[in-house]
Amino acid sequence: MDLKDHIVEMAALSKLASKKLSYAETTTKNKALLMMSDAILNNKDYLISENERDIKLARENELSEAFIDRLTLTEKRINEMAQGLKDTAALPDPIGEVVKMWKRPNGLQIGQTRVPIGVIGMIYESRPNVTVDAAALCIKSGNAVILKGGKEALNSNLAITKIITDAAAKAGLPDGSIQLIDAGGREAVNILMRLNDYIDVIIPRGGGNLIRNVVQNSTVPVIQTGVGNCHVYVDKAADFKMAENIIVNAKVQRPSTCNAMETLLVHKDIAKDFLPIMCEKLASLHVEIRGCAKTSAIVKTVKIIPATEKDFATEFSDLILSVKVVDSIDEAIDHIFKYGTKHSEAIITNNYANSQKFLAEVDAAAVYVNASTRFTDGGQFGFGGEIGISTQKLHARGPMGLNELTTLKYIIYGNGQIRE
Amino acid sequence: MDLKDHIVEMAALSKLASKKLSYAETTTKNKALLMMSDAILNNKDYLISENERDIKLARENELSEAFIDRLTLTEKRINEMAQGLKDTAALPDPIGEVVKMWKRPNGLQIGQTRVPIGVIGMIYESRPNVTVDAAALCIKSGNAVILKGGKEALNSNLAITKIITDAAAKAGLPDGSIQLIDAGGREAVNILMRLNDYIDVIIPRGGGNLIRNVVQNSTVPVIQTGVGNCHVYVDKAADFKMAENIIVNAKVQRPSTCNAMETLLVHKDIAKDFLPIMCEKLASLHVEIRGCAKTSAIVKTVKIIPATEKDFATEFSDLILSVKVVDSIDEAIDHIFKYGTKHSEAIITNNYANSQKFLAEVDAAAVYVNASTRFTDGGQFGFGGEIGISTQKLHARGPMGLNELTTLKYIIYGNGQIRE
Repeated sequence: MDLKDHIVEMAALSKLASKKLSYAETTTKNKALLMMSDAILNNKDYLISENERDIKLARENELSEAFIDRLTLTEKRINEMAQGLKDTAALPDPIGEVVKMWKRPNGLQIGQTRVPIGVIGMIYESRPNVTVDAAALCIKSGNAVILKGGKEALNSNLAITKIITDAAAKAGLPDGSIQLIDAGGREAVNILMRLNDYIDVIIPRGGGNLIRNVVQNSTVPVIQTGVGNCHVYVDKAADFKMAENIIVNAKVQRPSTCNAMETLLVHKDIAKDFLPIMCEKLASLHVEIRGCAKTSAIVKTVKIIPATEKDFATEFSDLILSVKVVDSIDEAIDHIFKYGTKHSEAIITNNYANSQKFLAEVDAAAVYVNASTRFTDGGQFGFGGEIGISTQKLHARGPMGLNELTTLKYIIYGNGQIRE
Repeated sequence: MDLKDHIVEMAALSKLASKKLSYAETTTKNKALLMMSDAILNNKDYLISENERDIKLARENELSEAFIDRLTLTEKRINEMAQGLKDTAALPDPIGEVVKMWKRPNGLQIGQTRVPIGVIGMIYESRPNVTVDAAALCIKSGNAVILKGGKEALNSNLAITKIITDAAAKAGLPDGSIQLIDAGGREAVNILMRLNDYIDVIIPRGGGNLIRNVVQNSTVPVIQTGVGNCHVYVDKAADFKMAENIIVNAKVQRPSTCNAMETLLVHKDIAKDFLPIMCEKLASLHVEIRGCAKTSAIVKTVKIIPATEKDFATEFSDLILSVKVVDSIDEAIDHIFKYGTKHSEAIITNNYANSQKFLAEVDAAAVYVNASTRFTDGGQFGFGGEIGISTQKLHARGPMGLNELTTLKYIIYGNGQIRE
């Protein structure tokens, strides 16, 4: 069978499974998640030995240690995967909620009820834990899922998928609820994302190239995740100690994440007092600083590399920070409008009007007053899980939990109404 | 300037306008809508004379009378356009609503507030009233809009856009809030729908070819509107008189619309009693009936054309109806799953369990019990306006009113929280 026929066959099976999953009982879905969790724990040795085959190949192909670290399944990570399945079972089932209902003058009762999206295509890189996390959230929300992980994790993903699909079948979930594409690499992705008759949404998770390929070529609707060029603006009326704590947290705690800060904006009236202390603190934490001309003029005790236009547009994902002194909150908001990626933006201020202005005028998935941008995360928001962070505006914006894997359908109760 | 530069320049202006529009006062937006309404009424002669140029060209190009009818601006239609602007001004402003807010254990208050999507690209055919209706809903919901109507309505659309943009500017809306693409035809559409840096969503409205081109080629997210292959299922426990009224309404009242019925499904236990009367009634209203073998065997007083597989998959948009006798509600639901386009589906029954089963298991934008599918419409649902009916599952499903032209952003109130 050629690759396209193979993937169409899988997608058609997913669509059939999604029909039954859409009205599966909560107890059945939870039972499946708990049995999947047990099966993961009962097959640790098998998972680790299959994972070792991937690691061996990765070493032969001289992939980086950071890459191999993400690829590696340790006993601790396997336990976390199993726990994640249990945690997902414990979350409330989003399906069936009637979010509103109203009555029309003709007596029709019109309501909106939460239903699964249908079939979700997940395209991701070589982190095997994503296979389990994505499957868990999709099943709990009543969706069928087709997984396409990075080819370097193929043996690990095949082992994981075999274990969890066997458990899901034993629990009574329909055949095809969880499927892994096991061949075809990039070509398989290109086929999958044009199967509009079977797939309802594609969610790409990974680096810029992966996401760009999907956005540029998918005819199936896409939820875009990813890029975060996040700013912290320190207003004239800021508490310096609070600002320092938040900036250190937003830049240093985990600089590789999409919700880490990349540019610091400081009001001119406090720049002389605030910037030298702040830059010394950041330098002591090994942060490289790329500042505007005013920053360089103010800060003399720490090396300031002149910031270029490109620096302000860059998601460094590293211990590098752009710094700019601004004349006003309006200049800060304009800078964010020009360079931001609409992910997470923060103001540090004790001025009421400025806090409200920033919240109202900054266009981003998450806008903070006096808190670190690092909180943009499904777990931190209280969703109990996350399938990605959407940086687009349609359907889902910000961290995507179970609700974001659902859609609403109208249900209408009548007693014979016809349209005049 | 070449076409691409021209459209990019327009799109960049839209993006700037959208920033200001996103926090424009409700009073400013309403004032603009009312001034646009007055301006339309004050320029009737100009609108009619420009429209006559389009009609003359359409006649020279031998376009159909139905096409010319949709293109024509009568005094009545101009009054309706002006009234539509007034009605939109009277609707509540969706922007700024905080739809929920909760507190996390660390004291963070996390909320979701309704904000505009940003820049909306509307692509539609040669009905000049869409120009006004779309602009009104976009402005009220704080979005900038780029309009691309059918080339046959270009003079009408230029005249309308000139009148309403002048009025909008006088009312204080930012320059570029409403723009019309005045050149380039299909090529302009192809440029527009790949401007991801400026355009947030494309909404195509029109025939299958127009929508297919956008879905296949847009890299900007699309809200798909359109195709409706809608079913009415008459259950064993149906009230025959109610069923007859609803079926006549769903098929005959306006057969060209997407929420009209295309296939009638009838439970086998009542087919012998119900179908002959129903088919006679439909035939008396000039409906052509294409029935399954059982239908042909039962109905002898009316001509039944044998239904093909293709008939069940066709949106006739005309006085033609497919009819199928089914063994059970499950067969009806399976038939809808196989042939439906997930638009509007209805069951006629007085059986409680079957009504609930149909509502739960049928996957469509709108699922009805004992009412006509013709109600799937923003006005009928009480939205006060409609920019289209979404037949996809992401973001908006079913009739799209003002709320569907918005998105949610997270706003977070902290007092110095950092992530551990």
